[in-house]
Amino acid sequence: VLALLEENMRREVTALLKYAEDDAGGLMNPRYARLRPEMTVDEAIRYLRKQAQERLETIYYLYVLDKEQHLLGVLSLRELFSAAPDKKVADIMHTDIIKVPEQMDQEKLSHIFTRTNLIAVPVVDGDQKMKGIVTVDDIIDVVAEEATEDIHKAGAMEPLESPYLQSKLSEMVKKRVGWLSILFLGGMLTATAIGYFEDDLAKAVVLVLFIPLIISSGGNSGTQATTLIIRAMALEEVRLGDVWRVIRREVLVGLCLGAILAAIGFFRVLIPGIVFHSYGDHYVLLAIVVAVSLIGVVLWGTLSGSMLPFLLRRLGLDPASASAPFVATLVDVTGLLIYFTVASIIFL
Amino acid sequence: VLALLEENMRREVTALLKYAEDDAGGLMNPRYARLRPEMTVDEAIRYLRKQAQERLETIYYLYVLDKEQHLLGVLSLRELFSAAPDKKVADIMHTDIIKVPEQMDQEKLSHIFTRTNLIAVPVVDGDQKMKGIVTVDDIIDVVAEEATEDIHKAGAMEPLESPYLQSKLSEMVKKRVGWLSILFLGGMLTATAIGYFEDDLAKAVVLVLFIPLIISSGGNSGTQATTLIIRAMALEEVRLGDVWRVIRREVLVGLCLGAILAAIGFFRVLIPGIVFHSYGDHYVLLAIVVAVSLIGVVLWGTLSGSMLPFLLRRLGLDPASASAPFVATLVDVTGLLIYFTVASIIFL
Repeated sequence: VLALLEENMRREVTALLKYAEDDAGGLMNPRYARLRPEMTVDEAIRYLRKQAQERLETIYYLYVLDKEQHLLGVLSLRELFSAAPDKKVADIMHTDIIKVPEQMDQEKLSHIFTRTNLIAVPVVDGDQKMKGIVTVDDIIDVVAEEATEDIHKAGAMEPLESPYLQSKLSEMVKKRVGWLSILFLGGMLTATAIGYFEDDLAKAVVLVLFIPLIISSGGNSGTQATTLIIRAMALEEVRLGDVWRVIRREVLVGLCLGAILAAIGFFRVLIPGIVFHSYGDHYVLLAIVVAVSLIGVVLWGTLSGSMLPFLLRRLGLDPASASAPFVATLVDVTGLLIYFTVASIIFL
Repeated sequence: VLALLEENMRREVTALLKYAEDDAGGLMNPRYARLRPEMTVDEAIRYLRKQAQERLETIYYLYVLDKEQHLLGVLSLRELFSAAPDKKVADIMHTDIIKVPEQMDQEKLSHIFTRTNLIAVPVVDGDQKMKGIVTVDDIIDVVAEEATEDIHKAGAMEPLESPYLQSKLSEMVKKRVGWLSILFLGGMLTATAIGYFEDDLAKAVVLVLFIPLIISSGGNSGTQATTLIIRAMALEEVRLGDVWRVIRREVLVGLCLGAILAAIGFFRVLIPGIVFHSYGDHYVLLAIVVAVSLIGVVLWGTLSGSMLPFLLRRLGLDPASASAPFVATLVDVTGLLIYFTVASIIFL
């Protein structure tokens, strides 16, 4: 294929092929508008009109280069247009330039665009020589793509590479079965935990009734916390150093949420206990067990859900892997331990 | 405040204030570059240089208007620059214009940008008169914002309005307690379901061991399916009309995933049953109950997880509300019914 392209374009394509698809080098376009610092404004406009015959990516920003392609400054076409015709380019260009290295990851790059409202960013190599520009219209796809990846990971699967309806069934199973099996193996610990308390349970089968309710409350509050932190990390609103502030917030929020659910749960057991005599004679104790367990489980879920992304990032892993089901599975086991421990203290 | 602004700007701001923040009218900028159809290329460039003194949003696209502000055509500055100086603007402009009404929702608008690679899109009123332009640098924030909203909803809470660390604790509790309580109330149905089978359970407490494992497998497979469909709907990859194709895919995927988990679960019960005599004499039957239930629960989780976003959209609700915990809670109750029904047929 390369042999069929024109010489000029072939050189460009070959140069771009050496970059990874998802870094600045892979996203950049080498066709940008360039000026020399010694040109006057009038000369620059004439020179631009000549360059515009080529298929430039954008002429909104004009890059001022020296003969060795070092990036000296940048100005917008609007600034060039509104400057006095005999001024020198060097006198009106900006020299405090936002530029990125070729290896910059596309996610980092997208943060530069969301923070700055720039339409294009220049890409330079290790010697500060200009290699091309990345434009915002390519980044908008990156932002959507990165969000899709994070959402798929939050749903406990590997991100699909193609749109849902175009994905092969075998790919679909492959992307989903990995996490599902890991979670299944992790979930087996719940059987072990319950097995440990099997004798207690045989004495008070009524405790079984609230197992799913209590562990899922921990899982749900953990899901909320982990979702908040993962997204905040992706948007760089929360960094590793914020861990103590997050702990303080989540402990307080977890206590509040736990107290509210505990109140609902308490009356959920008490009222049928009084009215229908549903849970035998010890319904008041059972209501207390459920309420106390809920405070503990929700607090623990909230705290561990918010800490898991920090732990993963600290270990150099992607915090987005702390999916809702992952957190829920972790919290399920500890939730059971909390529930049975509280029950054995108060009830048995 | 309005009184302090210059007359000109005040008129602009007042005009913009009447739009909702999240539609095309609210996002647009009224400062765009305009040309008349009868101008020559040289005249147009001179006219642009004059307009560039004002603070235009972009001069990358030039909009050709008649005297009543009707949008006749558009051309890029690059095209203007590379055209012969004496050509007329009307002869080089494009007339197949992508334009949007003032009321277009920002999410729809973002899809136009992700699909087309345009840098700006013109906004017109009901009479096709041009009102302003929306530029891609505003849309990039919208894309990130919409993704955050969907991710927060997927985590079973109302989207936060401010960054995590800036949100007040009371707001944090308020955004989270609603869904948490709804899920808690829904989760109470699990207690009812287990209560219905309480006598069976008293006869075979060993069944309790696998309750969390089996219902969470349904929840996890449901989470995967609902996550995939919600994101595909947000990106307009899947529409309401695709429901049958989705059902066919998810039934096949659900059967595959269920079969794989069933195989793991079968040996998880059988091996300790043989080696440690863990589950009494009926460990083979128990292994069969676990395996058959897993196929049923995973298939059901996958199917209901994928259908829930369709149902919500059909009802005019936001499909993104089908959060992981919501699906898990729904599937928990039905998962219990499947498990106990299978157990009572095979085991009891």
